[in-house]
Amino acid sequence: MWPTNEATKRLHVQWPIVQAPMAGGVTTPELVAAVSNAGGLGSLGAGYMSGEQIRSAVRAIRQLTDKPFAVNLFIPEEITGDTRPGENVRRLMNEARRRLGIPEDPDVGRFAEPFEEQMAAVLEEEVPVFSFTFGILEERWMTELKRRGVTVIGTATTVREGVALEASGVDMVVAQGSEAGGHRGSFLPDSPDNLVGLMALVPQLADRLSVPVIAAGGIMDGRGIAAALALGAEAVQVGTAFLVCTESGAHPLHKQAILEAGDDQTALTTAFSGKPARGVCNRFMREMAPYRDEVPPYPVQNALTRDIRQAAAKQRERDYLSIWAGQGVGLSRQMDASALMRRLVEETEQAMARFAGRS
Amino acid sequence: MWPTNEATKRLHVQWPIVQAPMAGGVTTPELVAAVSNAGGLGSLGAGYMSGEQIRSAVRAIRQLTDKPFAVNLFIPEEITGDTRPGENVRRLMNEARRRLGIPEDPDVGRFAEPFEEQMAAVLEEEVPVFSFTFGILEERWMTELKRRGVTVIGTATTVREGVALEASGVDMVVAQGSEAGGHRGSFLPDSPDNLVGLMALVPQLADRLSVPVIAAGGIMDGRGIAAALALGAEAVQVGTAFLVCTESGAHPLHKQAILEAGDDQTALTTAFSGKPARGVCNRFMREMAPYRDEVPPYPVQNALTRDIRQAAAKQRERDYLSIWAGQGVGLSRQMDASALMRRLVEETEQAMARFAGRS
Repeated sequence: MWPTNEATKRLHVQWPIVQAPMAGGVTTPELVAAVSNAGGLGSLGAGYMSGEQIRSAVRAIRQLTDKPFAVNLFIPEEITGDTRPGENVRRLMNEARRRLGIPEDPDVGRFAEPFEEQMAAVLEEEVPVFSFTFGILEERWMTELKRRGVTVIGTATTVREGVALEASGVDMVVAQGSEAGGHRGSFLPDSPDNLVGLMALVPQLADRLSVPVIAAGGIMDGRGIAAALALGAEAVQVGTAFLVCTESGAHPLHKQAILEAGDDQTALTTAFSGKPARGVCNRFMREMAPYRDEVPPYPVQNALTRDIRQAAAKQRERDYLSIWAGQGVGLSRQMDASALMRRLVEETEQAMARFAGRS
Repeated sequence: MWPTNEATKRLHVQWPIVQAPMAGGVTTPELVAAVSNAGGLGSLGAGYMSGEQIRSAVRAIRQLTDKPFAVNLFIPEEITGDTRPGENVRRLMNEARRRLGIPEDPDVGRFAEPFEEQMAAVLEEEVPVFSFTFGILEERWMTELKRRGVTVIGTATTVREGVALEASGVDMVVAQGSEAGGHRGSFLPDSPDNLVGLMALVPQLADRLSVPVIAAGGIMDGRGIAAALALGAEAVQVGTAFLVCTESGAHPLHKQAILEAGDDQTALTTAFSGKPARGVCNRFMREMAPYRDEVPPYPVQNALTRDIRQAAAKQRERDYLSIWAGQGVGLSRQMDASALMRRLVEETEQAMARFAGRS
């Protein structure tokens, strides 16, 4: 299981460590390549990128590494019904805009990049690994990916989602625990209270699936990796710990907020995108919390807050940034990605050696 | 660390496995003694018991074992302001009473057993281990316990709570993850979203505390125990897995519901007691969910629903039982407690041996 197992074989990597796909500019080609060059699997979070942007990022990655890497996309959702924000949500967004000095009620253009164009880029560039979140991949895409020998990874937050993903033909399933930062990958109609922690999710999923399980959520160091493997995972996916790395494209305030935060300072919010996501709590999240019912669905709300987030980033205004982060924030450490990879491997071996002396 | 470590030394047990204190009749003297006799630490969940009931239960345990065991109490809370339920809550409780054929708006008597009397019993019976939830123990009690050589365990759901507990003088801290069944032990004013998963909580707490950490929440088998130890815990506390054991006093419908449930079928509710607690979702939890703001605080709501829960138990009516359970439900197995203890120890050793061959 360490270092070689079914997951490392299928991914053609030395270590069962996947750098999580974090959309919105975090996963620069430099970060992805550094992780892959260090023997892990770097992932490009391409959910918000156009086909053209994906092509150019993949080419930039290939300039920097000849090792395998992953590209991640969001499964698109049908938008139905009234998608206008409620009065309170509109008011709070315009208050934010006034504070940032940008126009109120702007035109947002299109809500999301066309999935067809994104998939065309993934297929044409023949990326080694394709991962996706927010649903099940249509059969036609799965067939095309398999024909090209691409390893396909889906994302589950419950056993039922994992079973549905395996039935759809994925090669591996990411078990995303409630600890995870950023967007919840949930796609089956679960109650909002349905936040299964990784400690409970991994063994239940491993017992039900025949494909390898990749544990994600709150894993920040070798203790977490050893724990995930003990639970029955064959690999881990690590986000927050890589987000603060030198090569990450996250905003400096985003990195700083994570390095300073404690375990009880993150919360789930739909305020920024319309989908529940975990981040370090700030003013916009607190103000919007009472009006969850008035927030339009993803990707509408995501498009509606884009100008706010962009202005906040420019003006270094932490109150209106989406500071995605997992509950392991208190364990974050700043270094470059190859140093972090070495540290993770060493720490995992140390955690295993502590057991070896005792069993 | 396995089997002997700081936790097993202080608890005088063979294995670092604590059977969680589950109040409300689950932790019979037979269950507590069976776990202690098998080398773990049985715990009496005495939060709802009178001083006299605690005395008689402790004596019954001592008839069955000469090994150490724990008694657990709830730290009492000041009740202030209006404690009447809101109109919707009152209506839904009376609807439940009509369905169960019991009188509406009954007199509830006192809300909780007097803590002074409970503590007097704990001290006079000189229990070997005392654990508590929902707060910090007053200094006078801590002094009395220490004078008698009692090992004292507090319960934390965040790092800040763990730090406060260590400062108060506890010998160990239970790290209760969001996965855990039954009542959340939270006592600092955190946001309701603040549900830290065990994978994130244990290493952050272990890094900050000098006393041993006991991991609790979603641990159902040896994989979970090995994972908790890898994360930095020195022991585990296991609830749901013992609740379905032969010796447990849980209602047969409660055991059955756990044995049948999956990872995505539990939820947090304040409906039964006024405090957030995790259980298998049923009609009463679903009906009450929209009216959380109208539920009076613990222990008021707990007293107000007592007649409903008692009638539901008698009539075998699952819709109105509090079916406390953790998110690991899908891993539950019915056997007697000594067989479960043997199984947990064997599985943990197997999980460790898998590592030993690899590091």
